[in-house]
Amino acid sequence: MAERHHQKDQTDELADQGRRTFLKGSAAMIGAAALGACSTNQQGTPHEGFTPPAPAPATHNKHEVKPGQLDDYYGFWSGGQSGEIRILGVPSMRELKRIPVFNRDSATGWGGTDFSKDLLGNRMSGDTHHVHLSYENGTYDGRYVYVNDKAGARLARVRIATMEVDKIVDIPNSQGTHGIFPQRHKTGYVMCNSEFRTPQVNDGRDLDTPANYAAMHTAIDGETMEVKWQVMVEGNMDLAATDYKGLYSFATCYNSEGADTLEGMMAADRDRLYVFNIPEIEKAVQAGNTIKVGDSDVPVVDARGENSAYVLRVPVPKSPHGVNIDPTGNYAVASGKLSPTVTVVDINKLADAFAGKIQPRDCVVAEPEVGLGPLHTCFDDRGNAYTSIFIDSVITKWNIQKAIAQYSDASVNPIVQKLDVHYQVGHTNASMSETKEADGKWLIALCKFSKDRFLNVGMLHPENDQLVDISGERMHLVHDGPTYSEPHDCVVVRKDLIHPLKVQDRKDARFAIYEAWAKEDGVDLLTTNKMIRKGKNFVRVYMTSVAPAFFLKKFTVKKGDRVQVILTNLDNVEDLSHGFCMSNHDVNFIVNPQDTQSYTFTADKAGVYWYYCPWFCHALHLEMRGRMLVEG
Amino acid sequence: MAERHHQKDQTDELADQGRRTFLKGSAAMIGAAALGACSTNQQGTPHEGFTPPAPAPATHNKHEVKPGQLDDYYGFWSGGQSGEIRILGVPSMRELKRIPVFNRDSATGWGGTDFSKDLLGNRMSGDTHHVHLSYENGTYDGRYVYVNDKAGARLARVRIATMEVDKIVDIPNSQGTHGIFPQRHKTGYVMCNSEFRTPQVNDGRDLDTPANYAAMHTAIDGETMEVKWQVMVEGNMDLAATDYKGLYSFATCYNSEGADTLEGMMAADRDRLYVFNIPEIEKAVQAGNTIKVGDSDVPVVDARGENSAYVLRVPVPKSPHGVNIDPTGNYAVASGKLSPTVTVVDINKLADAFAGKIQPRDCVVAEPEVGLGPLHTCFDDRGNAYTSIFIDSVITKWNIQKAIAQYSDASVNPIVQKLDVHYQVGHTNASMSETKEADGKWLIALCKFSKDRFLNVGMLHPENDQLVDISGERMHLVHDGPTYSEPHDCVVVRKDLIHPLKVQDRKDARFAIYEAWAKEDGVDLLTTNKMIRKGKNFVRVYMTSVAPAFFLKKFTVKKGDRVQVILTNLDNVEDLSHGFCMSNHDVNFIVNPQDTQSYTFTADKAGVYWYYCPWFCHALHLEMRGRMLVEG
Repeated sequence: MAERHHQKDQTDELADQGRRTFLKGSAAMIGAAALGACSTNQQGTPHEGFTPPAPAPATHNKHEVKPGQLDDYYGFWSGGQSGEIRILGVPSMRELKRIPVFNRDSATGWGGTDFSKDLLGNRMSGDTHHVHLSYENGTYDGRYVYVNDKAGARLARVRIATMEVDKIVDIPNSQGTHGIFPQRHKTGYVMCNSEFRTPQVNDGRDLDTPANYAAMHTAIDGETMEVKWQVMVEGNMDLAATDYKGLYSFATCYNSEGADTLEGMMAADRDRLYVFNIPEIEKAVQAGNTIKVGDSDVPVVDARGENSAYVLRVPVPKSPHGVNIDPTGNYAVASGKLSPTVTVVDINKLADAFAGKIQPRDCVVAEPEVGLGPLHTCFDDRGNAYTSIFIDSVITKWNIQKAIAQYSDASVNPIVQKLDVHYQVGHTNASMSETKEADGKWLIALCKFSKDRFLNVGMLHPENDQLVDISGERMHLVHDGPTYSEPHDCVVVRKDLIHPLKVQDRKDARFAIYEAWAKEDGVDLLTTNKMIRKGKNFVRVYMTSVAPAFFLKKFTVKKGDRVQVILTNLDNVEDLSHGFCMSNHDVNFIVNPQDTQSYTFTADKAGVYWYYCPWFCHALHLEMRGRMLVEG
Repeated sequence: MAERHHQKDQTDELADQGRRTFLKGSAAMIGAAALGACSTNQQGTPHEGFTPPAPAPATHNKHEVKPGQLDDYYGFWSGGQSGEIRILGVPSMRELKRIPVFNRDSATGWGGTDFSKDLLGNRMSGDTHHVHLSYENGTYDGRYVYVNDKAGARLARVRIATMEVDKIVDIPNSQGTHGIFPQRHKTGYVMCNSEFRTPQVNDGRDLDTPANYAAMHTAIDGETMEVKWQVMVEGNMDLAATDYKGLYSFATCYNSEGADTLEGMMAADRDRLYVFNIPEIEKAVQAGNTIKVGDSDVPVVDARGENSAYVLRVPVPKSPHGVNIDPTGNYAVASGKLSPTVTVVDINKLADAFAGKIQPRDCVVAEPEVGLGPLHTCFDDRGNAYTSIFIDSVITKWNIQKAIAQYSDASVNPIVQKLDVHYQVGHTNASMSETKEADGKWLIALCKFSKDRFLNVGMLHPENDQLVDISGERMHLVHDGPTYSEPHDCVVVRKDLIHPLKVQDRKDARFAIYEAWAKEDGVDLLTTNKMIRKGKNFVRVYMTSVAPAFFLKKFTVKKGDRVQVILTNLDNVEDLSHGFCMSNHDVNFIVNPQDTQSYTFTADKAGVYWYYCPWFCHALHLEMRGRMLVEG
């Protein structure tokens, strides 16, 4: 099989210039086969001009992390439809943690504990798309992770200290929240794009008049998680990005036609890169030049239609997808999707365009052809960009300055290498690529189809997150990483920037809830082991634990009682989590070292019910249990 | 860090004979530190008689599965509190799939689709403990995977053809269903142990009289998933095993005292290995020598108290945990947990013990000392056993025949090697170890604590599933595998035995439901794209899809309508799953190639709501959507 890998590596070659046309005849492309989703694998014959690849470098195996060794990077992955965030170690590509966000999690009780139930309501699913960390001065500050839910139009935040979600906010007037990006000069706004245009107000009016639909670009305060303002635009918005100075945010618009059908969305040859002028929008909000939409009190700047001080529309080839800012902060790169090009916008020219001194399109300084179906771009620290190419199933490495040179001198070739990936790559990201500290070590190709790359595990295949060594002049594929559905995006963060707690410091906002209950009941969470009847049908059960024992061995309730268990884990030792599972009551939750958690359920059956610690904590773990006696 | 690994490897040495005593003074052991759960890592000083380890073998890296290569084994993992089953590739230790079982799964809609909602009810969590495949003639037949829920006393089955759960059954009169094991001569019974003793009947009587509590050993038909009979015994049951002939099943009993407190459960120096005589139990069931317990109609054989034709009680050192049968089918090995020994029972002597010709304890043919806290044992094809040692954090390799020889000749040393694992290993299993075809290639050590083995990801650490090469005389640790909480057990299955479908064959029992609806409505699932109003507040929406389009672009309902979407994926291409997500309605589910799935929800808000395909299926995937118009 090693031979097979080398054979595929031979297609790491320069661009097939025969593809140098925009995709035309969109109707013909609607069939999946035409777009490669169903194509057979792409070994084929080598491109013309083929030369044998260089032998694998001596560093080929440096991705292997041996037993006991630690990874160099934290990878934060969005979980797609799984609704979670994942942390992977890079380069080992081992999954170190799942953080439940919009999903229900059986292991930790997320969605069932009192705190998380309040955050999630009765909802059980989400579609996490983009995961980004909070910034300070152009690099990660190690405080928060933000992730959005496309399915439910929400934004969630993980506090890195605890690696748990501490806030979730609903985004008003929105559906299909897709791209998000935090500001990079400080923990400022997190900008969120609505992908789906809807009636504004969406209360039953304008049901079937898509021409009247509109979408929102929303600013959420990254500290308070409050929705601060929205900008209403006419088109579907896709990916988001922010500059490094706090001046602009960006959104690709793939349906400037405002259509409600596939054919309509692909009608125009050009779509738009929206550029939002944040200082000007803030001025409008402060001056009250806003409207309210529906039940929401969030101020909305109506920027539909024409270019204005708020929104500049840069024409780009049809249906752009990703937009990424290079580590110098000078360039925004929009990927073509239905054009084989990426469009490079010089951010420093935008002020002149907003001022009307130049045309929006004059900000474009390069438009290299990178392959069929360019989706996303990441960067190294040496002026190179790496674009994921969905239809061709390659990562195209290209040089930014050469692409700019090519824009006025067609003889310059900016393409450095194309590397086969397997298959149909969506997002790609590189180590520290979304910061000023991009370091050009590792690249992740998040491939949407794995086809034959893993043992057959049935109809639902894993995706394939491939690891690519980009430290040298040529890229090398070093690892196939199967992943559960459907990791959408990731960022790869140097490990010195991430410092979670090892035991709970009891300083989360969440503790105010437990302390309020304890105060109300006149008890101390750290020492109380008793049941307190709060009313005819409600009891609170305070309990503490040290491995291998709960310090309340039994409690007695009446059938029909609501029972709130408030459990404090007194163990003060790293990695010694306990939990509480009430047999046959669908109650299970985790309590980490020095943490408190609570869960409320109904004792709806008479009889004896054992509660037990489900987290293996001790040789006598199985004996860590007690009894709830339910009187009939 | 490589040096560190080698340093730890030096403790791969023979037993510390100073430990050669039963654990006494149980009270002193209750503190976690005493049992190693909180102990610092165990490098310490080399054992006496230390000799430098052999250099790593030339095969050291054969566990690496390079890009494009396939694994040799399917590993089926129970997911612990996550409630799921996982499939890993072995030896790459890459997670190839999660199969939602007792958990809600945001990605696939498991627990929300009409079929899975009916199986799960409103429950959201489970605690999967043991995963085993169906057998034929002592090896896997590739048809089913069984897994139990300790939290909810349920048994689920996965059909390997589809890698989806097809049945879930509630186990009556039970709490804390812990050990399970299918019969091995054919797809017969799956035997399930109740760990928690409760009143029988558990309806409010005998609430606080633990002496009257009892537990059930339950037989579930592996073909029909019906509960066939139960045997009531006096003690807590832990792990389960079956022989290879269909005559016996086994259960370790760690609380023969019948106590309800930790101290009481550890009082006696000896506990029991229960042996259930299946033909005799069947005779009693057929003869009607059974009782009924509570609301359940399942016949119960009352075998409490004394040895009988139904249950033999083999005395073993206190608090045994695992019981495993060697690949010859001759020996049952019970692990001591609170004794440093494992007890080897000669299965061929059991008939004489049941017949009263010998005492139960006379069936014991060996009791080697293996280390502090033995939990589980697996086997190779060369007569060796491998026991996981929780407190010592080692895998002890020992030879069965030498252990038998040692039982009458103390000068024989059956211990071959002890290998440090990291840390506090629970279950262990080896490739094909639970079959006649054990092949002695790879061993998995499922370590409960990872402590410092991975980047710090916060209070909840991953577990550590380590991969050990056991193909040679000496064991070698080759991989640290972090896993989400809390994989309990696994089996490792040769890949030639597993053959899932690549596209749905539409032959699952599940399809009868959809076909019945279609017949009722006079439509064809494969061609229908329309909404049918079924009543004042209920509509059915039939829909088909081919990438990148749903063939129903919109439908109109009234606010408050119950909406049942029945979606058929016409794509007939491997790996081309679609799904259906209704924005802002918490509705998301998967539909694999050629599959049909259905989901019912309430359209509770007026307005336009976009549905979209959340499974990246095509370059125009984002455009695969339609609208639900909800009239106010």
